[in-house]
Amino acid sequence: MRAAGLRRALALSPRRVPAMEQDGRRGTATGPGPATATATATGTGAGAGAGAGRGRVLSSATMNPRIRRVEYAVRGAIVTRALELEAELQQGVRKPFTEVIKANIGDAHAMGQTPITFLRQVTTLCLYPELLHDAAFPEDAKKRAQRILDACAGHSAGAYSASPGIPVIRQDVARYIERRDGGIPSNPDHIFLSTGASDAIVTVLKLLVWGEGRERTGVLIPIPQYPLYSAALAELGAVQVNYYLDEERCWALDLNELRRALRQAREHCTPRVLCIINPGNPTGQVQSRQCIEDTIRFAWDERLFLMADEVYQDNVYAPGSQFHSFKKVLTEMGPPFAEGVELASFHSISKGFMGECGFRGGYMEVLNMDPEVRQQLSKLVSVRLCPPVPGQILLDAVMDPPQPGEPSHPRFAAEKHAVLSALADKAQLTQEILNRAPGIRCNPVQGAMYAFPRIDLPARAVRQAQDQGMAPDMFFCLKLLEETGICVVPGSGFGQREGTYHFRMTILPPTEKLQTLLEKLSWFHSKFTQDYS
Amino acid sequence: MRAAGLRRALALSPRRVPAMEQDGRRGTATGPGPATATATATGTGAGAGAGAGRGRVLSSATMNPRIRRVEYAVRGAIVTRALELEAELQQGVRKPFTEVIKANIGDAHAMGQTPITFLRQVTTLCLYPELLHDAAFPEDAKKRAQRILDACAGHSAGAYSASPGIPVIRQDVARYIERRDGGIPSNPDHIFLSTGASDAIVTVLKLLVWGEGRERTGVLIPIPQYPLYSAALAELGAVQVNYYLDEERCWALDLNELRRALRQAREHCTPRVLCIINPGNPTGQVQSRQCIEDTIRFAWDERLFLMADEVYQDNVYAPGSQFHSFKKVLTEMGPPFAEGVELASFHSISKGFMGECGFRGGYMEVLNMDPEVRQQLSKLVSVRLCPPVPGQILLDAVMDPPQPGEPSHPRFAAEKHAVLSALADKAQLTQEILNRAPGIRCNPVQGAMYAFPRIDLPARAVRQAQDQGMAPDMFFCLKLLEETGICVVPGSGFGQREGTYHFRMTILPPTEKLQTLLEKLSWFHSKFTQDYS
Repeated sequence: MRAAGLRRALALSPRRVPAMEQDGRRGTATGPGPATATATATGTGAGAGAGAGRGRVLSSATMNPRIRRVEYAVRGAIVTRALELEAELQQGVRKPFTEVIKANIGDAHAMGQTPITFLRQVTTLCLYPELLHDAAFPEDAKKRAQRILDACAGHSAGAYSASPGIPVIRQDVARYIERRDGGIPSNPDHIFLSTGASDAIVTVLKLLVWGEGRERTGVLIPIPQYPLYSAALAELGAVQVNYYLDEERCWALDLNELRRALRQAREHCTPRVLCIINPGNPTGQVQSRQCIEDTIRFAWDERLFLMADEVYQDNVYAPGSQFHSFKKVLTEMGPPFAEGVELASFHSISKGFMGECGFRGGYMEVLNMDPEVRQQLSKLVSVRLCPPVPGQILLDAVMDPPQPGEPSHPRFAAEKHAVLSALADKAQLTQEILNRAPGIRCNPVQGAMYAFPRIDLPARAVRQAQDQGMAPDMFFCLKLLEETGICVVPGSGFGQREGTYHFRMTILPPTEKLQTLLEKLSWFHSKFTQDYS
Repeated sequence: MRAAGLRRALALSPRRVPAMEQDGRRGTATGPGPATATATATGTGAGAGAGAGRGRVLSSATMNPRIRRVEYAVRGAIVTRALELEAELQQGVRKPFTEVIKANIGDAHAMGQTPITFLRQVTTLCLYPELLHDAAFPEDAKKRAQRILDACAGHSAGAYSASPGIPVIRQDVARYIERRDGGIPSNPDHIFLSTGASDAIVTVLKLLVWGEGRERTGVLIPIPQYPLYSAALAELGAVQVNYYLDEERCWALDLNELRRALRQAREHCTPRVLCIINPGNPTGQVQSRQCIEDTIRFAWDERLFLMADEVYQDNVYAPGSQFHSFKKVLTEMGPPFAEGVELASFHSISKGFMGECGFRGGYMEVLNMDPEVRQQLSKLVSVRLCPPVPGQILLDAVMDPPQPGEPSHPRFAAEKHAVLSALADKAQLTQEILNRAPGIRCNPVQGAMYAFPRIDLPARAVRQAQDQGMAPDMFFCLKLLEETGICVVPGSGFGQREGTYHFRMTILPPTEKLQTLLEKLSWFHSKFTQDYS
């Protein structure tokens, strides 16, 4: 870790030489400018040498500075260390634990959840159509596979699809949304399939982010946030505008805080976008209908484009909590909102009961989008040709699941129920065990797949972390990992109110393992508190 | 088409209103600024109204102007029209043809090529592991599938993989490259799997493009080019620096022209990158070893980062032509090039003999990349989590094909040979038939999947096109489509020397269909020439 931290520090303050000495090009006051990039000792294998003593064309000092600013905690330093520890265990190195448990990422299959049979059957039949004659595969899966293959160019999943996705799948998505929203119409032309939700989110941001100085697009995002947002905004050079969720009210969205954030942002940028994550990631709250209405009214009044990240819409556990789609609420609010508020809503096959992260499937629905802009969006997605077809197919099986009376229905319903009810139990278990521990407070996990507990850290630990240039909760999480093998992500990777500390953990491990993990974690926090008091 | 053209024209000159009347924000001299976005008649379904008479937050006038400048001819207006014609045919509308033939895109399966059995078997077994017990699947496919599943978290293709790809697959890619390049070592840590080659190309460009004014990164690309490059450069706001391939010498890369382009570019930007497409797309040439050496020397002398698009490396047909990888040549050139020239090389499963475009699989190998930058690259790809796992698996089956003695070898070898030898025949057939037609000249199709013939267009046609604000070869291609159902892409979508006209067509249709297509095309060109003379 130290070496990595050191390398990062070096990257931020590269040694410079006058540009003229370097390669005859003029130096400049703006931008990083050319600099030496002497080969470091960290290079592995071929390619470590810079050749003939010159600096590299592309070095950490001469690369795009926006990319250097990108951070993505969910797969950051702590995960790198977890992988190293795993490798050490495999090599027989003795550790105070026998297994690294990666509770850092919402990856259900990695935690042992088995695929939903029907989804895989439809996908498999499309990839290997010979199996359409295999009696071991049920007729309803075959029917769906045949319909998709008929819609593929050359009847092959290996052909490019239309850039916004295979038309029949976009139709199935629209029908799924209509059922979800009690019959409110959905237009397949407003559906764009994507390479996971991340892809669609970044695509919409690309349309919205432009301008220089005070004209630069500001994007309001919740804090704590899922770090895709901060990473994408850094990459695009947008102004990140933080609005803080209210931890005391179960991470509710607070309209006054939203107003404050917007007012202050307007002093230095042009806020054009409001991002919502509901159910919340990393915070697990489920927004009330009233709160969604207020948010929509706010977006209308303040002329903000709404981006609703609704990838956890099937993951609602708490009694009394219910998922309301922004589209449904907006439509039911009537004019001027129903036809005026511009919205993009995102969904994914990586979460819910399916957890098929590896397939990179998802979609967005756009509402009240300028038809010209929709054309521009279609053009933009065409440059990448199409989302992965296997992911599109699997998405279709989610959108058009077996119905009562169809042969796959009993098994599908049972598998789906088993996953979701286990998750509800684990959500409950997580908050119960964590709240028993002194110095840890955990809001109810109403939805999504994560707990985001607040932890007290002793002043001496905070000081020691700061001395090492490290966020205090990163310090805690690293110690936790080294001593218990438990990998969780520090709250600082998601953002939190100054002076508060948290971590995010998934509730995905199998129940018994989760229970052990939670107890170990509570024990370690108590030990850590004593050690540093 | 007219309506679409009109809409596009409108998008480029939006009506403006003073900003203060609009929403109280200050107007600005830079950027598009707010403008009315009155609902147009082209809106379909819900969402056409802008609500309460106000303009939209996101309109064609208030969107990111860089995105507006993006163009992607391969899926542009001509393809939209082809899809419309297809729909009309299906509805029973009478046309002078019975079928639309989409020769616009290198999509083998869409043109009737059947998947290579072994590749699909390995992928299918990974997606539906129950089939590992099915006697209908060969043992070598099972062995490979089991090995990949063992490397997947939770033994599931539905788990996220490591962001640069599944480690064993990166190892297989490295071994494949070593075999390809006669034993030159390849380091799996320098391999990054990707979502098709496009994804990797854009990712590398993101690292390289920055700066303002004369410091802004210039990227040298061949003209004619594959329009992913111009689209990505427009999106990233890089300076596109054109170097023209020499049509008279079979689209060879001309070092003097490269020097000219660089010299002129240095007057207004900072060229940092040289892109090569070999074998060429859309031009089909295969670079000689000497030319590659010269290019590498040039990149070294001029301090340019090399991006080698080598996705057609398996598609070389002409006697005497041979694929030389930039990596191999560079390494064999010894110091200072071998350890100094920075290179990223791209490959894909969408082309070659497999043509599995829909899976969106590919990889890049980076060479002599600053270890710090490689870390930044790892971080950047982690934000999108991972490339689609089914595409990774299929790539692995390509990298680790059946060997002599393994049960799948005979079938695999036969299927692969059938595809490649048919392509070689079709490359020959294409140039022969086209060169018989007066007013059409076609360079030998040495490699890749396209012909890029030059066509004479009568002056009256050129004038008529220009009167309609249309590129003359677009005018020709649209007429061709309307009268014959043949869909090819005008040369103007790829770039060409001023005053010359071309089109790109794939050589992928089945031989008989291709022959008919070529004869029809030649006939139409002659008719068109008469009509407009």
